[in-house]
Amino acid sequence: MASTYGKFFRVTTWGESHGPALGAVLDGCPAGIEVDEALIQHDLDRRRVGQSKVTSPRNERDNVQILSGVFEGRTTGAPISLITYNADADSTKYDSIRDLYRPGHADYTYTAKWGHRDHRGGGRSSARETWGRVATSSIARALLKQAGIDVYAFTKQIGTIVAERFERDAIEQNLVRCCDPEAAERMVAAIDQIKIEKDSLGGIVEVRAEGVPPGLGEPIADKLDAMIGQAMLSIPATKGVEIGEGFKSAPMRGSQHNDDLYVDESGRVRTRTNHAGGMVGGISNGETIVARVAIKPTSSVSRIQETVDIYGNPREILVEGRHDPCVVPRAVPVVEAMMLLVLADLYLINRMSRVAWEAPNA
Amino acid sequence: MASTYGKFFRVTTWGESHGPALGAVLDGCPAGIEVDEALIQHDLDRRRVGQSKVTSPRNERDNVQILSGVFEGRTTGAPISLITYNADADSTKYDSIRDLYRPGHADYTYTAKWGHRDHRGGGRSSARETWGRVATSSIARALLKQAGIDVYAFTKQIGTIVAERFERDAIEQNLVRCCDPEAAERMVAAIDQIKIEKDSLGGIVEVRAEGVPPGLGEPIADKLDAMIGQAMLSIPATKGVEIGEGFKSAPMRGSQHNDDLYVDESGRVRTRTNHAGGMVGGISNGETIVARVAIKPTSSVSRIQETVDIYGNPREILVEGRHDPCVVPRAVPVVEAMMLLVLADLYLINRMSRVAWEAPNA
Amino acid sequence: MASTYGKFFRVTTWGESHGPALGAVLDGCPAGIEVDEALIQHDLDRRRVGQSKVTSPRNERDNVQILSGVFEGRTTGAPISLITYNADADSTKYDSIRDLYRPGHADYTYTAKWGHRDHRGGGRSSARETWGRVATSSIARALLKQAGIDVYAFTKQIGTIVAERFERDAIEQNLVRCCDPEAAERMVAAIDQIKIEKDSLGGIVEVRAEGVPPGLGEPIADKLDAMIGQAMLSIPATKGVEIGEGFKSAPMRGSQHNDDLYVDESGRVRTRTNHAGGMVGGISNGETIVARVAIKPTSSVSRIQETVDIYGNPREILVEGRHDPCVVPRAVPVVEAMMLLVLADLYLINRMSRVAWEAPNA
Amino acid sequence: MASTYGKFFRVTTWGESHGPALGAVLDGCPAGIEVDEALIQHDLDRRRVGQSKVTSPRNERDNVQILSGVFEGRTTGAPISLITYNADADSTKYDSIRDLYRPGHADYTYTAKWGHRDHRGGGRSSARETWGRVATSSIARALLKQAGIDVYAFTKQIGTIVAERFERDAIEQNLVRCCDPEAAERMVAAIDQIKIEKDSLGGIVEVRAEGVPPGLGEPIADKLDAMIGQAMLSIPATKGVEIGEGFKSAPMRGSQHNDDLYVDESGRVRTRTNHAGGMVGGISNGETIVARVAIKPTSSVSRIQETVDIYGNPREILVEGRHDPCVVPRAVPVVEAMMLLVLADLYLINRMSRVAWEAPNA
Repeated sequence: MASTYGKFFRVTTWGESHGPALGAVLDGCPAGIEVDEALIQHDLDRRRVGQSKVTSPRNERDNVQILSGVFEGRTTGAPISLITYNADADSTKYDSIRDLYRPGHADYTYTAKWGHRDHRGGGRSSARETWGRVATSSIARALLKQAGIDVYAFTKQIGTIVAERFERDAIEQNLVRCCDPEAAERMVAAIDQIKIEKDSLGGIVEVRAEGVPPGLGEPIADKLDAMIGQAMLSIPATKGVEIGEGFKSAPMRGSQHNDDLYVDESGRVRTRTNHAGGMVGGISNGETIVARVAIKPTSSVSRIQETVDIYGNPREILVEGRHDPCVVPRAVPVVEAMMLLVLADLYLINRMSRVAWEAPNA
Repeated sequence: MASTYGKFFRVTTWGESHGPALGAVLDGCPAGIEVDEALIQHDLDRRRVGQSKVTSPRNERDNVQILSGVFEGRTTGAPISLITYNADADSTKYDSIRDLYRPGHADYTYTAKWGHRDHRGGGRSSARETWGRVATSSIARALLKQAGIDVYAFTKQIGTIVAERFERDAIEQNLVRCCDPEAAERMVAAIDQIKIEKDSLGGIVEVRAEGVPPGLGEPIADKLDAMIGQAMLSIPATKGVEIGEGFKSAPMRGSQHNDDLYVDESGRVRTRTNHAGGMVGGISNGETIVARVAIKPTSSVSRIQETVDIYGNPREILVEGRHDPCVVPRAVPVVEAMMLLVLADLYLINRMSRVAWEAPNA
Repeated sequence: MASTYGKFFRVTTWGESHGPALGAVLDGCPAGIEVDEALIQHDLDRRRVGQSKVTSPRNERDNVQILSGVFEGRTTGAPISLITYNADADSTKYDSIRDLYRPGHADYTYTAKWGHRDHRGGGRSSARETWGRVATSSIARALLKQAGIDVYAFTKQIGTIVAERFERDAIEQNLVRCCDPEAAERMVAAIDQIKIEKDSLGGIVEVRAEGVPPGLGEPIADKLDAMIGQAMLSIPATKGVEIGEGFKSAPMRGSQHNDDLYVDESGRVRTRTNHAGGMVGGISNGETIVARVAIKPTSSVSRIQETVDIYGNPREILVEGRHDPCVVPRAVPVVEAMMLLVLADLYLINRMSRVAWEAPNA
Repeated sequence: MASTYGKFFRVTTWGESHGPALGAVLDGCPAGIEVDEALIQHDLDRRRVGQSKVTSPRNERDNVQILSGVFEGRTTGAPISLITYNADADSTKYDSIRDLYRPGHADYTYTAKWGHRDHRGGGRSSARETWGRVATSSIARALLKQAGIDVYAFTKQIGTIVAERFERDAIEQNLVRCCDPEAAERMVAAIDQIKIEKDSLGGIVEVRAEGVPPGLGEPIADKLDAMIGQAMLSIPATKGVEIGEGFKSAPMRGSQHNDDLYVDESGRVRTRTNHAGGMVGGISNGETIVARVAIKPTSSVSRIQETVDIYGNPREILVEGRHDPCVVPRAVPVVEAMMLLVLADLYLINRMSRVAWEAPNA
């Protein structure tokens, strides 16, 4: 079950960073959803390496091919197989660390678990695996769009620089995908500087979903919050996830944190505030869903580090290869993708909640 | 799939706060695990209401009965059914809010989803549901103990008071289950005061697992971090979860955050620091697992709040009933329980990782 | 996953033949389904022992209690927990076989798998486990009734006596639940005789579902036929399952077996014949679903048999206790129950097949 | 969940008969299993069209490419992606039936379910889908071989001709994969004749597994028999499955059907006979597993048949295209594949049955 997300709208990814190809199979997608290869590619281009000076210089076009499940521009109900072939995988750069474990990487844990060492570019633990998540999330987006749901993510923090303004239109206008154009400039400068210092930066990504109807999420284990928790912490390099006020709710009082209810002019039940981040009791309440994800600084730093080799000897390591000095800008579309996959799954499952009993306020 | 945790070691809970009984079925437990009803009851007593002045005065003995799956003191491989009957459910206290939605509670979202209103004590969204999680986690604890794994949780923060020392022995010696006895005293005082103010407090619970061998966790979707994320955010009132440095990793540099590797005297691969919180690439690395969970302040506050009724009219509400002014002390055994369930599941699944290929450093 | 049926409408059973109680938890049932405890009991009474001279004389009232998931007579969307307490379990009758494996029973295989021997009445492998399947199937029946689906089963064959006529009204009018009243009389006589001979009989149960709309069943693995295959072969004592012509289709020609299509007066696409048994390509086609299940003769026969004990010594065994000389009449409601569970699950899942693409002949 | 088999050793297939490619992803395979592309191809060649005069003349080489999950000749624990590109898909042959439903095919049911018509060669319901099952089953075979398990299938019956002798070596020596060389000759002649008559034949395939240790299979829902039932009835054109004596057990007496137990010279518990087909109570007992599968005659017959078009008009249809006059010989490797997938899954799951409790006869 390792490589499959979702209970009903299910995505299985496969492929290694330096293998011949990467892909994903989406099973459980309803028939009739319009699929536009160009839109999938657009989402993939936001994720790919080599897109700007703040990302890894590895050059992968990441071209998507649809191999099944789409006929005459629409999903058929059959599994949708998407594939891309690796073009610029240069494994020779990894020869020098063939028998070394890189600190901060999954080298040791993969070897400890599976009993062997695939030294080429992180293999399955590489962020390249997220290609399939983003590719299939495009189809989730098309499904959710029909339901009026709009999902977007952006950079909230890089290093110690925090966005202070929110301009949605600004997000895709700067290299770091920050909602605050002024902070974005400082973030780009900070990344330029950290490259010079042969070090790396982390940050925080925020994701929002607007137009989500009340009712999404399945108590108890498959709460909306719980599914977001799993999805976000399945992204490489993430170390935390929070909903609404998140960790800031700990020092609040109940009278501050509770969101009072009212009925708006259209007759919908709404909340005056949105401390809860769009969900109560694990179920969406119709307000904007808000989550934030902590991203650790990239593990690959071009400095001498202490480590051990696969034979158990102490060694020093200098990690070469091509890396992102800060993975946050490329994490934005991945965080967005995971929210899309979570919501598509829960949206479909929610269609089975009721058969006949009318709501008292329906 | 709403009410089932786990992929293989699976717990299904059932029962409402004010129904006749609550229970859980554990399927997938190996045969041969010793089960001691007294140990289960011990864990349940840590969770139950009415245990001290800082918890709700509702009085439930929460006695566990084992109905199946155990023979002559050991698990048989069959599903283990555990039950407790509700004794002190007084639904009349909820009559006045029969047609009102309580702010911060799941009243509106449950009605929006399922189309009806069960007004009695929160029904399924009540924290009473966690009885079955704690009861079954005792069996997970027995399983993990065989593998040398030790899991414990404690209060890290209540309101604005943060634990500054760590004394494991202190945890169960104070009413708030804090690892810092001096902070614990101030936390108890803060709860006393907030009760007078008819308000409530939140906080942070930390959970640790020691002795976890390397290899637990399944990439990609079922990473150890991801499973912890789902488990913790499935607990009522949680708003965030973080691993290791968590959100504090965002402003760190890679050279600071990376944990250097070395080989200890026993020949084991270890890390000098544990910023990662015991896992890399979604797989345990043999260091102590460290996670923290943010708990919002209790939603039930005995103050007038703005709300709407089930007919869509604006109303005021004063929530009566018996509540915890701060749920953090009772959340400690629940957070611990979820970590036990996560680890038991991943421990079993990890037994299928390898057949024959020997590790290069085995 | 051992004890859970279904992908979405999921039933988990628990309990041993001679334990304190038996039960089932149904999760994934939509809200709003009317639940009538008397109707559940009616279905259970058809399954229970001691109902007539052709069944085991063990006396269990099998009273159902609903412990959760139902409020004011309707399902709430929460897990539905059903329980019955064992009343007439007399384990002393099994003391003489405490260390013997009964031929034809699961005694040896359970011990080989789990590493211990629970000698009391078959433990978990007893047909008593089917109590929970029948109990929850009543709720599936209520769900399917809303969709116009009607499921019923009957005895087609006992020993060498085969039903030749079909009268639906006759089924519940005779002790063996046969659709042919004349054959039924001979079947009852055959069972009377086999009891005298201290032997047992097998037979065949047929199950039909009328009113099933086209579209149920998920290719590839979760085809309607495949789900029926799993469900029926999960019933104790079953040795085969077939759909439509079943094994009789092997010697047929394609031109004979194909069901020609036509449009009936109401505009529905129909087939002239129903060799396929109501499904093509794993998906229901709107015709009556027809399946048959082979039931082996009861393993408990009161004769001396050759066996071994748990220490590996050759032994003779004479199985005492109370048994059905022919389990077919009591298998009828269980086969019916499994078809109900399969169809409820696939009915719900089918609601997610389409979003927008209109059928060309819609 | 439609296109995924297995609970732990899980195979997801994708691709349409006339799409660009077909494939499968195997997730949950342990690390360290030797993978030989030539052996996979060998299994695939037994399944492919155009292999002899008794199969469809469509010419597909069915070359397998391994895209992930294998490194230096062994599985790594990562998902294994296998692909083949369609070469000889000629959809123009289907243009004449673009708006007609073929009797016996899934044309109508797919349209009824998904709301559209993909007329090209059966799309997803084509037997070409089984490519991925056979490809991945080769890896299951390698896994099971390590455990001493040997699985093989053969033709038992074609039309009215039944194999009377069993010679294992004969199976792959004749065009119809029959265990009886003399019957095989008559079967080939019968297929030659039915082609002339523009009709088709069905038959029965038997599958056996030798060397299966006791303990495989999970009661209750995931019994070995139940998993075989699902797997076999998920194969296109199957209409029945039976275990051991199967439907022949119905007229037997308990004293005939029970398999007496004894201890063989090596100390293993064995049965004198094997009426049960290698499993009791849903768990393997160490004897040879025996199952039979009924295959209906091919639906494509080159005769005028009555049908309707997608607009609901009565029509006549003459199905062109390239078909197998009898699919049984090519079903043999598919039945074998499904048994391999079932056993690999249950073999792994069984590793989690016990932790410590020693068997009384261990």
